[in-house]
Amino acid sequence: MKFHIDAQDVGTSARAVTFYTAHGMVQTPVFMPVGTLGAVKTLSPEDLIRNQVQIILGNTYHLYLKPGLEILQKSGGLHRFMGWSGPILTDSGGFQVYSLNDLKKISAEGVEFRSHWDGSAHFFSPEKVVDIQRIIGSDIIMVLDECISNPSDYETAAAAHHLTLEWALRSRNRFLESSGFYHFQQYQFGIIQGGIYPDLRLESIQQLVEIGFDGYAIGGLAVGESQETRNKITEQCVKNLPSDRPIYLMGVGTPVDILDGIDRGVDMFDCVMPTRNARNGTAFTHQGKLVIRNSQYKEDLNPLDPECKCYTCQNFSRAYIRHLFNVNEVLGLRLATIHNIHFYMSVTLQAREAIIRGKFLDFRQRFMKTFMDEGNKNEK
Amino acid sequence: MKFHIDAQDVGTSARAVTFYTAHGMVQTPVFMPVGTLGAVKTLSPEDLIRNQVQIILGNTYHLYLKPGLEILQKSGGLHRFMGWSGPILTDSGGFQVYSLNDLKKISAEGVEFRSHWDGSAHFFSPEKVVDIQRIIGSDIIMVLDECISNPSDYETAAAAHHLTLEWALRSRNRFLESSGFYHFQQYQFGIIQGGIYPDLRLESIQQLVEIGFDGYAIGGLAVGESQETRNKITEQCVKNLPSDRPIYLMGVGTPVDILDGIDRGVDMFDCVMPTRNARNGTAFTHQGKLVIRNSQYKEDLNPLDPECKCYTCQNFSRAYIRHLFNVNEVLGLRLATIHNIHFYMSVTLQAREAIIRGKFLDFRQRFMKTFMDEGNKNEK
Repeated sequence: MKFHIDAQDVGTSARAVTFYTAHGMVQTPVFMPVGTLGAVKTLSPEDLIRNQVQIILGNTYHLYLKPGLEILQKSGGLHRFMGWSGPILTDSGGFQVYSLNDLKKISAEGVEFRSHWDGSAHFFSPEKVVDIQRIIGSDIIMVLDECISNPSDYETAAAAHHLTLEWALRSRNRFLESSGFYHFQQYQFGIIQGGIYPDLRLESIQQLVEIGFDGYAIGGLAVGESQETRNKITEQCVKNLPSDRPIYLMGVGTPVDILDGIDRGVDMFDCVMPTRNARNGTAFTHQGKLVIRNSQYKEDLNPLDPECKCYTCQNFSRAYIRHLFNVNEVLGLRLATIHNIHFYMSVTLQAREAIIRGKFLDFRQRFMKTFMDEGNKNEK
Repeated sequence: MKFHIDAQDVGTSARAVTFYTAHGMVQTPVFMPVGTLGAVKTLSPEDLIRNQVQIILGNTYHLYLKPGLEILQKSGGLHRFMGWSGPILTDSGGFQVYSLNDLKKISAEGVEFRSHWDGSAHFFSPEKVVDIQRIIGSDIIMVLDECISNPSDYETAAAAHHLTLEWALRSRNRFLESSGFYHFQQYQFGIIQGGIYPDLRLESIQQLVEIGFDGYAIGGLAVGESQETRNKITEQCVKNLPSDRPIYLMGVGTPVDILDGIDRGVDMFDCVMPTRNARNGTAFTHQGKLVIRNSQYKEDLNPLDPECKCYTCQNFSRAYIRHLFNVNEVLGLRLATIHNIHFYMSVTLQAREAIIRGKFLDFRQRFMKTFMDEGNKNEK
């Protein structure tokens, strides 16, 4: 994978890199909106482009069940199916298998689970998950890993970590033996597990690097651990990872979490937070979170975030968006989502610019001051 | 109201006119998408502009209850509240009072009703409905009328027609005595009632014209009467109306109904059909209606309508839109709505062009051939 370090911040481990996929380059730090089922909920591809989204995440588990592989293959892959011509990263489906299924059965071979739609039985092996992502045609393929809950004791974490490494090797072999369906190059990232145990994390990194992937993801975080623990593990992982590949912190997070990750050298992030919060009527603003249904916004003619340049904030008032939510107009869901995605993209873009100027800490402190002082006081 | 007849068709009564509002001109025949609660459901103002929507309809009943007049006035009227800078016509609220309320009480003074949101008691008089529409700030204000169900006997129709005329006079007086809140000119249309009885319709027209309105609407149709009856009443009304004002057929209808109306000289139409059908997964196409959830579209990579130039048809397949509906992605509602609105706008725009060329009948026959031969066979 063609990869270039554009800048390294002075006071922190933050960095700005560019890497290249068959569907275009990605400049980091980058946030990937989640397009679970072939759509970033409520948004069209045009909405994504207009909000400077560079790369989106698709969920292998969901796409495998619906619309299913036959339609995706017949359509020429997910890009064509959903009309998005930029890069796509797909997860392995593992996280959904573990979180949406009470009836899963994990063995050395793979994981057996039931569809949350109709209860039908399915089986994911590391190889099959590569094959599925070949059919989906994502630019970046993630390996199947075993996700554990937090907290997990050392033995549980070690066992999951060892299985994940076995699967990583099988995944890489399958990837190298196979090729894409749609005449473009795909890449594959490995996933570091090991829970909150530094020795397991280190072993995980060493063995994954020995196998050799196009990028590395820090898995098993953003599952309820403390901010301090997450930051410590992230820091340790980044320090031990090769600097010539993208580093991806999976499932993170709030704007503050993302800045924490950038500070420690992470390049890529994904989270349902901006889209899910939008649909629940919560907007991220430079002054913190804003719950649009609150009666204080009833006659408030200001935009969601007076500092924001998104379509929503340039055209509509809090009073109007509150009204849309109150009367269940789906336009409200889209307007709030446009804003939140724009906010997340803007935070990472500004972080990139600050890193290039060697001023990431300044930017971060300035951002945190208004973001934490106002709306998020109660969350501290 | 500045008004100009651009063309009169040769073989039919169809005409193309231009009239001017403070928010821009309207070229007819024109279809007005329904923006019930300050939004054409699922669409942003930008979506409307891109689909050549010229004028939208707002519902006085709904807007009066939510968001309420205080917020609308504080926002500077509905245009600013919803970010739509084109013309707006608002109905009188009467139709919703009658159709959404079991507990309404009609007297000579007005109509008492209960909110469908919270059961609170409200009263609409002809004067109050003018006042409300002054606050909403619509470009075209409709008078309060008494709507009767179909079928209604002669006595019921006559009584409602007489009350409607009394109210029309009071409405016009209030309109002429008052002025707008937002420094632009508003206009007012009268509504013809009289059920299916030609003598009542004629009397209604004569008295409304004597009062003098900026335009005239044919009310009391599209309530379950036969196509033949609707066409006969429409024809009679148009023949007896002054030709120097816009003529509006309220609540109509299917593309075929609209062409029937255009044929008879109607200028303006509104209906929830394109937006509501879209949300139910039914697309209007040149080959008739298409029910997107049907399994035949599961792997269909064609656009909803291969002849269509809308954003949806230029970018997405039936298989993709079917998938969005199947997994309840709200993007599907918007993409289908964009298509249906584009289809309706395109039918009326093409009708206008055909009228200007004196070829409306040709256009109509060509349209009907594919539209009726294919998808709508079963509806004949």
